Amino acid sequence: MSEERHILHMASGRLEALGDGIFAVAMTFLVIELASPVVTGKEGWSDFIHAMHESWRGFLCYMISFVVLGIMWFGHRMMFEYIGRTNRYFIFLGVLFYMVVCLVPFSTKFLAHNTLKWYAIMVYGINLSLCNLSLYAQWIYGIHRTNLLHKDLPDEVKREAKILFLLSPVVYGIAIGISFFAPWISVSIYIITPILYLIPNKIDKYLP
Amino acid sequence: MSEERHILHMASGRLEALGDGIFAVAMTFLVIELASPVVTGKEGWSDFIHAMHESWRGFLCYMISFVVLGIMWFGHRMMFEYIGRTNRYFIFLGVLFYMVVCLVPFSTKFLAHNTLKWYAIMVYGINLSLCNLSLYAQWIYGIHRTNLLHKDLPDEVKREAKILFLLSPVVYGIAIGISFFAPWISVSIYIITPILYLIPNKIDKYLP
Amino acid sequence: MSEERHILHMASGRLEALGDGIFAVAMTFLVIELASPVVTGKEGWSDFIHAMHESWRGFLCYMISFVVLGIMWFGHRMMFEYIGRTNRYFIFLGVLFYMVVCLVPFSTKFLAHNTLKWYAIMVYGINLSLCNLSLYAQWIYGIHRTNLLHKDLPDEVKREAKILFLLSPVVYGIAIGISFFAPWISVSIYIITPILYLIPNKIDKYLP
Amino acid sequence: MSEERHILHMASGRLEALGDGIFAVAMTFLVIELASPVVTGKEGWSDFIHAMHESWRGFLCYMISFVVLGIMWFGHRMMFEYIGRTNRYFIFLGVLFYMVVCLVPFSTKFLAHNTLKWYAIMVYGINLSLCNLSLYAQWIYGIHRTNLLHKDLPDEVKREAKILFLLSPVVYGIAIGISFFAPWISVSIYIITPILYLIPNKIDKYLP
Repeated sequence: MSEERHILHMASGRLEALGDGIFAVAMTFLVIELASPVVTGKEGWSDFIHAMHESWRGFLCYMISFVVLGIMWFGHRMMFEYIGRTNRYFIFLGVLFYMVVCLVPFSTKFLAHNTLKWYAIMVYGINLSLCNLSLYAQWIYGIHRTNLLHKDLPDEVKREAKILFLLSPVVYGIAIGISFFAPWISVSIYIITPILYLIPNKIDKYLP
Repeated sequence: MSEERHILHMASGRLEALGDGIFAVAMTFLVIELASPVVTGKEGWSDFIHAMHESWRGFLCYMISFVVLGIMWFGHRMMFEYIGRTNRYFIFLGVLFYMVVCLVPFSTKFLAHNTLKWYAIMVYGINLSLCNLSLYAQWIYGIHRTNLLHKDLPDEVKREAKILFLLSPVVYGIAIGISFFAPWISVSIYIITPILYLIPNKIDKYLP
Repeated sequence: MSEERHILHMASGRLEALGDGIFAVAMTFLVIELASPVVTGKEGWSDFIHAMHESWRGFLCYMISFVVLGIMWFGHRMMFEYIGRTNRYFIFLGVLFYMVVCLVPFSTKFLAHNTLKWYAIMVYGINLSLCNLSLYAQWIYGIHRTNLLHKDLPDEVKREAKILFLLSPVVYGIAIGISFFAPWISVSIYIITPILYLIPNKIDKYLP
Repeated sequence: MSEERHILHMASGRLEALGDGIFAVAMTFLVIELASPVVTGKEGWSDFIHAMHESWRGFLCYMISFVVLGIMWFGHRMMFEYIGRTNRYFIFLGVLFYMVVCLVPFSTKFLAHNTLKWYAIMVYGINLSLCNLSLYAQWIYGIHRTNLLHKDLPDEVKREAKILFLLSPVVYGIAIGISFFAPWISVSIYIITPILYLIPNKIDKYLP
């Protein structure tokens, strides 16, 4: 009883703040690797196009990773609509998730330098998959500890969340497999996947 | 009815926190590109002035971009005085806005290295215009979904906001056009534009 | 009496926000030093493994430091479950703590470049120990000023916290001592120590 | 009347969050410039001391700037104990303050590379003075607009704050003047000044 009186509240706000900070820095870090294009020759329109052309891989990878991190941030944010308290293991799983999120600028740079190489496609795909899987692990841990939840979790949301969490690891796995034969298809898959998350889904009706 | 009970609140606080983090990092990143001046010769006053003179382009671009990002942050901050909840599409538009904001240190560096070149003026102007336009898109989406608003939006604010959002893309468009003939006028326009946002406007009377 | 009316509340929220920001940046900075692996030769599986092999030290140090910072963040976060207000000296001790936390990316890089060298092991161990000791100093100062506390602190938590705060400086001290004879044991200790903090402890029962 | 109903609250929380983020990034950025020491020769104790000796200027400047930014953060934090709302001009002054705060890593690096040179001492001193003066300008603006205040401001705090804000510009001005004759005295002043802010002052009695 005396102990119960001392139970800490451990609101999730601080973990969310750490996460928001990490996402903000990781997203801004993506761009730090973009080399400043050098326009040479007579510095006419075609020279400019040529210089930008040199940089297009970096820009493309920047945009993909930024939108992917945005979607992950959204998933991470949604999680805390249901989970309002934390404990040591939940926070530990959160740290693991943030650890792989912080690697995204690294694997983005690796992909930008080796766009159509199987190994860069693999590293990038594994990195993004680990992000989703570690976030899913945190989610599963959280929703099975009723004292961490602060809102009823409808079964429909549970099912849909599972699909959304596991969709991209599956798709990225396929992209990695294809990369040995047709790497440009793999890169196209990386471009298209974020768009899949824009399609209306069953969770939408719970949103304002 | 059962569904209504489960509607998530989706307060905008988390998106604001992500945005504040991204602005803070982007604003601090601006300065990371500033090269440390190297004072040579007898290291007298004139050698110091000479060394600083080498860096003035970087400083000028730093200051312009910092103030411009400050003004954009203000617009972004104002938006959330009226909009208090979010949904998936609103957040997606927010991610797009943050994506172009994070590119500002990149285009600032490009402008600092090529101050009077038409292509640097164009890249910089397009970047800043995209920031304003994507923020405007988010604003328009937000104010037309009454369940995202948490405060009445007077028509006057709506009209004035439209002017403030669309003022700089127009001015930057003009600067880009002029850059082919008189690039120093374009740069002057970039310097002057932020000052336009300091002039008292109709929204002021709604502020404390 | 008139003075009492003016006593500031000085809620700890702002200091927590600064700390969350510093941890977020320091954790993301860790990865910025990771060099992009360069795959050479025929770019086959073995060339990829070889390139990754070159980077393993960086990855290992990244992962250790990330988890260690995660654990420190947890300790820092726990502190504010009991301490809800701040004063000038408490904040000053906080700044000292953040100062050594911000050095972790530096000493991680130093260790990654000199993995089995006694001096790198020493610098890294001292850095992490200083983090723990400065956080402990802040904790001790805070819990002895009753007007900073906003929750009763059970004696059991006090004792356990002391053990948890002082465990790693002792272990790191041993690792530094061993480094002169068997540096790979020291590095193993750095790998294992974070795991010790995952073992269930007496504070767990106060968590949700 | 209809307008009064629409007056925005403009709580200062967002500006504080931006500021906390900027301080967190600027403080962590300080360390990014510290070069990893290279230990050569037989890698014995004396070689290590020699390598660290090469880096001591960087470390010293890092520590001074970190503590100075900590003190400024404290001043910035105190300000918002009294000021609870913002308007456009107050935020603009805040952006100016953040602009010079973000330059501190730059001038710290400049000082670390040119420790005893008058020009580095001058740039560093001017940068820190501009931080204090712009924060003071924001404070003065804020306390003279009663609708921004959310707490009575005792005259004693007002007087003491003025001294604390203007103390370092004066001291730094003296340091700059001395730098032409005895630069090591100037650097000593930079080391000692932060300690002055640790001396008990009249504001302490309003703190918990």
